[in-house]
Amino acid sequence: MSGYFSEEKSVETVNARMGKDINPRLAEVMASLVKHLHAFARDVALSQAEWELAIDFLTRTGHLCDDERQEFILLSDTLGFSMLVDAINNRRPPGATENTVFGPFHVEGAPVRQMGDNISLDGKGESCLFNGRVLDLEGRPIKGARIDIWSDNADGFYDVQQPDTQPKWNNRGIFITGPDGVYSFVGIKPVSYPIPDDGPVGQMLKALGRHPYRPAHTHYLVTAEGYQKLVTHTFVGDDNYLGSDTVFGVKSSLVAPFERIEDGQTIWRSDFDFILTPVDRTR
Amino acid sequence: MSGYFSEEKSVETVNARMGKDINPRLAEVMASLVKHLHAFARDVALSQAEWELAIDFLTRTGHLCDDERQEFILLSDTLGFSMLVDAINNRRPPGATENTVFGPFHVEGAPVRQMGDNISLDGKGESCLFNGRVLDLEGRPIKGARIDIWSDNADGFYDVQQPDTQPKWNNRGIFITGPDGVYSFVGIKPVSYPIPDDGPVGQMLKALGRHPYRPAHTHYLVTAEGYQKLVTHTFVGDDNYLGSDTVFGVKSSLVAPFERIEDGQTIWRSDFDFILTPVDRTR
Repeated sequence: MSGYFSEEKSVETVNARMGKDINPRLAEVMASLVKHLHAFARDVALSQAEWELAIDFLTRTGHLCDDERQEFILLSDTLGFSMLVDAINNRRPPGATENTVFGPFHVEGAPVRQMGDNISLDGKGESCLFNGRVLDLEGRPIKGARIDIWSDNADGFYDVQQPDTQPKWNNRGIFITGPDGVYSFVGIKPVSYPIPDDGPVGQMLKALGRHPYRPAHTHYLVTAEGYQKLVTHTFVGDDNYLGSDTVFGVKSSLVAPFERIEDGQTIWRSDFDFILTPVDRTR
Repeated sequence: MSGYFSEEKSVETVNARMGKDINPRLAEVMASLVKHLHAFARDVALSQAEWELAIDFLTRTGHLCDDERQEFILLSDTLGFSMLVDAINNRRPPGATENTVFGPFHVEGAPVRQMGDNISLDGKGESCLFNGRVLDLEGRPIKGARIDIWSDNADGFYDVQQPDTQPKWNNRGIFITGPDGVYSFVGIKPVSYPIPDDGPVGQMLKALGRHPYRPAHTHYLVTAEGYQKLVTHTFVGDDNYLGSDTVFGVKSSLVAPFERIEDGQTIWRSDFDFILTPVDRTR
């Protein structure tokens, strides 16, 4: 009987079971998922013991997830899956600032600061003047752009990871551009840090001979009416982990200059312009 | 720089990150997994919102898993993945009894019974005489074969699902064949039942327009020295769900006759021979 399972027709049998009146996009996505999952099992001739190991891995990954920790996002990130989904959904024309992973440490509601304000509230780390403009593809300044910034502190932790020892909103702030599109603020030259690696994803990285580090970066979420949301980082160019970011977030266009100025105010200066893409433009 | 991520080279970039001195089988499996996962995201142009839905689905699936419930196994089963892995690992020559899914309800340590014993301890359901032989591929009886049997009761639940209302070891038992290879026991004609469908997998089945039912079946785990472990079911041929088993466990060779005999002892009789495959034989 044709509805019965066989090794050869496994994909067709499973996908033929879907109802006729279901969401067509769901049907498309699930049919593709079944096709690729089955192809994977077939290609490697997955053993029963390996299947059991996978069930156990996924179960432990789920058990570690709570309000503070999202191990499935770490898994997606470390397999390059998050970056691929980000890339597919943010194809931009030449010259536009590229997207990268959002990451788990953004917090809604950071304070809006005045241009030039210092967002490093714990006084740790090497101070840096961040400076640049928000522009359109033709180089014209964008007024009213909202720049939401977050980074780790000099010890490699975000404020939400250390609520007892870091001031609230440490190394976070929102800046709104004026008619000249210019932004500037004082923060720190960020430092590289390991993603949480005491769980299944850390075990996977170790078994794969990979380190858990991200190169030093500052996060930006830039929004302006009529333009695509820009989720990106700037990276410190001399970082040891630049070529081996454990979540694959680095793009060469996002590596920013860090110039040692020691002008009495800050030690470093980093200039970077954000070029936004109109909502209706793609690559 | 070549180590940086790009949409086009995502698979190569991720897989190149693996260390050189790692387990070669792990490297092979993970490289294939990354290849197929990325191909899936690319084929359907997975959106950011769909990715977030997937993360949430996996997280809720993990949270539901405990000692009593294994939602990831249900997920694997309902996507036909468990049956595919089973098929890949149990390719057998013509004439040999085929494998099917093990399922989550086997319990080690069931009592060894005498041939002809009744394993239905709750007195519910339509009694059935199960009868047959354990044979090799040449039709010779296998002595000392161990037949571990389990099925649901007339309400569609295994004893472990209802520890307060079913007698311990209800519809379970182990039988050892003598020189004639014959087995016989009295049980019930099993009934179809839904897999647990109050979690993410149930939601998925509903969204896919699929029911959660398994057609009526009796589980068998047959082992004998020198032969491959046989994990299988026999199915009741007139079951409504035979063509749409939600875990794809049905194979036509496993559909058994159920003959209404009403001989004063039992209502039904079902004959089925188990043909074992030597350990060193494959298809």
